[in-house]
Amino acid sequence: MKFNPAMNHVYLNDAFKSSTISINLNLPEQNASACSLGGAFPESKELVLTKDGRKVPGADRSILDRSRSCFANCRRKLFNKRTLHKRLPILRWLPMYTSEDAICDLVAGISVGLTVIPQALAYAGIAGLPVAYGLYSSFAGCFVYIFLGSCKDVPLGPSAIIALLTFQVAQGSWQISVLLCLMCGVLELAMGLLGLGFLIDFVSGPVASGFTSAVSLIILSSQIQNVLGIKANGNTFVELWKQVFLNIQDSRPTDTLLGITCIVVLLMLRMLSSYRIGPELDEQHSRCQRVANKLFWIVGTARNAILVIVCCIMGYLLHSEQHGTPFCIVGEIPPGLPSVQWPPTSLSANETTDGEPQDFFDMVHSIGSGLIVIPLISLMESIAIAKAFAFGQPTDASQELIAIGTANILNSFMQGFPGTGALSRGAVNNASGVRTPLSNVYSGTLVIVALLFLTPYFYFIPKATLAAIIISAVVFMIEIKVLKPIWRAKKTDLVPGVGTFVACLVMPLECGILIGIGVNVIFILYNVARPKLSFELLLTESGIEYLMITPDRCLIFPSVEYVRNWVNKHSMRQNVPVVVDASHVYSADFTTATVVGSLINDFHQRQQLLFFYNLKPTIYELFKQASAAQLVVYYQEHQLENLLRERHYSQKSEFA
Amino acid sequence: MKFNPAMNHVYLNDAFKSSTISINLNLPEQNASACSLGGAFPESKELVLTKDGRKVPGADRSILDRSRSCFANCRRKLFNKRTLHKRLPILRWLPMYTSEDAICDLVAGISVGLTVIPQALAYAGIAGLPVAYGLYSSFAGCFVYIFLGSCKDVPLGPSAIIALLTFQVAQGSWQISVLLCLMCGVLELAMGLLGLGFLIDFVSGPVASGFTSAVSLIILSSQIQNVLGIKANGNTFVELWKQVFLNIQDSRPTDTLLGITCIVVLLMLRMLSSYRIGPELDEQHSRCQRVANKLFWIVGTARNAILVIVCCIMGYLLHSEQHGTPFCIVGEIPPGLPSVQWPPTSLSANETTDGEPQDFFDMVHSIGSGLIVIPLISLMESIAIAKAFAFGQPTDASQELIAIGTANILNSFMQGFPGTGALSRGAVNNASGVRTPLSNVYSGTLVIVALLFLTPYFYFIPKATLAAIIISAVVFMIEIKVLKPIWRAKKTDLVPGVGTFVACLVMPLECGILIGIGVNVIFILYNVARPKLSFELLLTESGIEYLMITPDRCLIFPSVEYVRNWVNKHSMRQNVPVVVDASHVYSADFTTATVVGSLINDFHQRQQLLFFYNLKPTIYELFKQASAAQLVVYYQEHQLENLLRERHYSQKSEFA
Repeated sequence: MKFNPAMNHVYLNDAFKSSTISINLNLPEQNASACSLGGAFPESKELVLTKDGRKVPGADRSILDRSRSCFANCRRKLFNKRTLHKRLPILRWLPMYTSEDAICDLVAGISVGLTVIPQALAYAGIAGLPVAYGLYSSFAGCFVYIFLGSCKDVPLGPSAIIALLTFQVAQGSWQISVLLCLMCGVLELAMGLLGLGFLIDFVSGPVASGFTSAVSLIILSSQIQNVLGIKANGNTFVELWKQVFLNIQDSRPTDTLLGITCIVVLLMLRMLSSYRIGPELDEQHSRCQRVANKLFWIVGTARNAILVIVCCIMGYLLHSEQHGTPFCIVGEIPPGLPSVQWPPTSLSANETTDGEPQDFFDMVHSIGSGLIVIPLISLMESIAIAKAFAFGQPTDASQELIAIGTANILNSFMQGFPGTGALSRGAVNNASGVRTPLSNVYSGTLVIVALLFLTPYFYFIPKATLAAIIISAVVFMIEIKVLKPIWRAKKTDLVPGVGTFVACLVMPLECGILIGIGVNVIFILYNVARPKLSFELLLTESGIEYLMITPDRCLIFPSVEYVRNWVNKHSMRQNVPVVVDASHVYSADFTTATVVGSLINDFHQRQQLLFFYNLKPTIYELFKQASAAQLVVYYQEHQLENLLRERHYSQKSEFA
Repeated sequence: MKFNPAMNHVYLNDAFKSSTISINLNLPEQNASACSLGGAFPESKELVLTKDGRKVPGADRSILDRSRSCFANCRRKLFNKRTLHKRLPILRWLPMYTSEDAICDLVAGISVGLTVIPQALAYAGIAGLPVAYGLYSSFAGCFVYIFLGSCKDVPLGPSAIIALLTFQVAQGSWQISVLLCLMCGVLELAMGLLGLGFLIDFVSGPVASGFTSAVSLIILSSQIQNVLGIKANGNTFVELWKQVFLNIQDSRPTDTLLGITCIVVLLMLRMLSSYRIGPELDEQHSRCQRVANKLFWIVGTARNAILVIVCCIMGYLLHSEQHGTPFCIVGEIPPGLPSVQWPPTSLSANETTDGEPQDFFDMVHSIGSGLIVIPLISLMESIAIAKAFAFGQPTDASQELIAIGTANILNSFMQGFPGTGALSRGAVNNASGVRTPLSNVYSGTLVIVALLFLTPYFYFIPKATLAAIIISAVVFMIEIKVLKPIWRAKKTDLVPGVGTFVACLVMPLECGILIGIGVNVIFILYNVARPKLSFELLLTESGIEYLMITPDRCLIFPSVEYVRNWVNKHSMRQNVPVVVDASHVYSADFTTATVVGSLINDFHQRQQLLFFYNLKPTIYELFKQASAAQLVVYYQEHQLENLLRERHYSQKSEFA
């Protein structure tokens, strides 16, 4: 930062006391150490401006200084280790792993495993694939996440939202689903390695809520057919309901009855998991109460697995050779692990719907914009878990992308469809007291055991039960309750939120969320382009009137012409010296410099005085390029008086 | 603004003296009057926050009060008149029109007329159309602009840039060019009526320079063939030069000689227009010097017309029945005004290149993204004139769009191609001392006269001369000189600038400029998403250490998670009470409220104290939605001490 305090036209005080913007004039070494603190956030290094010393007497600065020198020393040693720890988080927690951690992880892992098996069977249905593919997608990621995962609560595997997106892209073709899994994995890995995790920041809360709610509603609608035992094909919300109403006369009473019963039971068991008997505090519970509460929690948490087992047995018992089973059942599942093979890269004529063979590029073309949206949503869902349970621990979105990407690449070789960290299982994981990502090993193993030994028993699982599991999960993802706080907090935020919700219902999902993000970006751009200006008619100490104009944010190209127009307009009306208070102007660009040059010229042309107050030195340097001769800056309020005197300014008559 | 100063947890002083953000707590009537000042900028009303009173004793507030009450009174009367004046600017200047204005306008109008006729012939060539279409495009807009134009210096008519864009879209089909003119006109009019003129703000200085330079280079390249007398077809810069080099052996020496001579003569005459003999001050000139200087100026300004006349006569004299003319000449131009007719809305088979008939939608489809870019660039060029010569008078982009749009709609019925305010003629207009848009009437009339009586004489105009006119005009539009100031002012601004330049050279122009704008928008979004944070370890008066964290800009959804991560990171390291100084935080959204709620929760979980300093009341209201119980805000520095005491905080040992 080249800045000469003795420079002509610039009035500087010692430490910019009157300035509220922190300015580092001569602390390059501190800036350097500030950078070293930024290890975990590579994109922020140049942006963090660390300054201390204001109001801190020399003796008291020791703490920060000490921590800094310590950091500076450690940095060289740690740098490689730190990167390694960041990219292989297992190195962080494994050396400190205790037997207590192991027990907690085992309990959590089994709880998640009991949830993931029925969910995997059900989500395969959402993706329009045979149920076996759900299981194929549920174990490889678990083992990857142990090494690469940065958040203990995230259980990798299929998720309802990603399954629906997979269905919208692949339309139920397992070949395209598996290829999609590979391509998403590669893309996620690349994005993670390039540090593009910050993209998730551009999905705002209302957009995420709108999207999740719409997806949940669509998933719910797509499962109504299984509850009723009818066929209803459709991509969008409207189509699905239209089909349901057209075919409702074909509904099978047994399926309907089973489905509705299952939903009711699941909702009741869900309440059971948080139900407690006895006094409020755990310490005051009797042994009996404690066992009962534990039992409630286990039954509530494993409700899906319990229901599936019960219904499966029921299906088996009600089955007769003559009449079959009274419900639609899952049917045969190929036993054993999936064969490890390359994801399909072409389709023969009999594998496509239109009977035309497709090569690799045709397949990629049919995937289209899914390749942008699925990685984004995968990250969104995974990060949502991390944010919900991290309690202030920073989340590393790029590392999550690397983990999800690697998991999906591996998944695609096991014929899985794309997965991510599913929010519902994340909650189970957290509630079961998970300590490290090692819990994934148990849930992964459970899925493998299921594939190896249990598939024959899955034959009799009623489809209505799986639908009920999905419905009773997604119904809580419809975030109607978020509307009220948004309405009370900031009504304009309803526009992207409700906009995304409606767009996702009537359009393909990926269009819907991109529209929501687009609307939000337009809001930001409008915000940047139209700063607030405050106009104040003030008096100096000697009673000279001047107009103080304060923009409340940065002046960059979309706003600067607008500011010039307003400054000119008000200045011409008042015809007194004008001061632009740049305290809040934190950045500027070349267009700003040009336009400020024109502004200074405008004032020069009509012989009106214009001063800048509290202009950051970097921005002063920038403005000087455009208009060195007439740019006058001062940094202390009383200097204005001198400036006016130097220019022989005396109050003009108002009525001249 | 509901705000209760007595509210729990909030420490307020009387007038937010320690705050540097202007806060209007109880000035609703002043806000209302502030709105009334915003007549000319409808998009800004709600954003302008006018406050006065600070440091202004009661007696001295009379001026602003008076001007306000005056405005408030006038407003009701003026509102309709004001809108009318804004939409029909002729009402503003016509009642005050003097005979002196009339003379100035006559001189300027004729000067522009003498420039527009040769330019129109030449620019038709850029658009790939017969020269007559250039003249057809040059008169209707002039008459429209008298009524609707808001800037005296803008001469409506064909422009080199828009002609090139027309060529890239219509590929030399007059039917598509004329339809494009209609559609652009309709779109521009609609954008103007919807107040979308602000879109121009999103074209930054560097992007505009890069685009103009690239366009000039392409136009120059496209005219080289006419100077050499060869054929070189191509859309992009590279194609054009490839063709030129392939065909250079066919070049005709007579054309080459004439073309180069014309360029040299034009460049010399251009210098002549600003050449002065005699003493520096005009008053000291002798009569003879004055006449000579005037003559220099006239010859310099009318250089294009003079050259065309001279070359045309030369062509006529060198013409022989046997050998024809030694140069490529313009050839026959249909005499008379164009017939007024509907723009073509379909093409028959023999009017298209591929021999397939096209209906209206095929034609619109072939126009494609030109419909977005041409209105934007038309406005950009027109506003550039207004900005260059307005000297601080605000420019009304939406009104310009209305004027250009109406002119283009009318033009399309005269078989014209799209036009706008051309920068080169704007400069002539200004230099000729134009006073009002009425000067357009004379240049428009001159074009009509040319069409009615002069077209037979245009037969012998050499194409090389027209090419020379274009080349010697566009060569000054290549803005190499802007590189150095951008480099010195802000190096990152070279990225969108040079990016646009290169993209426009290698891609279709509309892609090029959209890429440039896109890159700029990404810069803005990055800026919004990654605020600077300043961390300071400070002491209260009684010596209690605390960490002051100051974000330098607003906290909205792309940045707030990042801020939360950093605040947590530094706070955990220091483990002292933390104060977030929100002086520069001018806006927040629902996502901010949620994340700040999580942040407060993070601090609560680890029992660390967190205060907000100087939070704007509107933002306080917002944050309160998310976390009412633990949100603590104060507004005066000394209040921190009390807050710490209330919470029984005492300095913890650093080495505990």
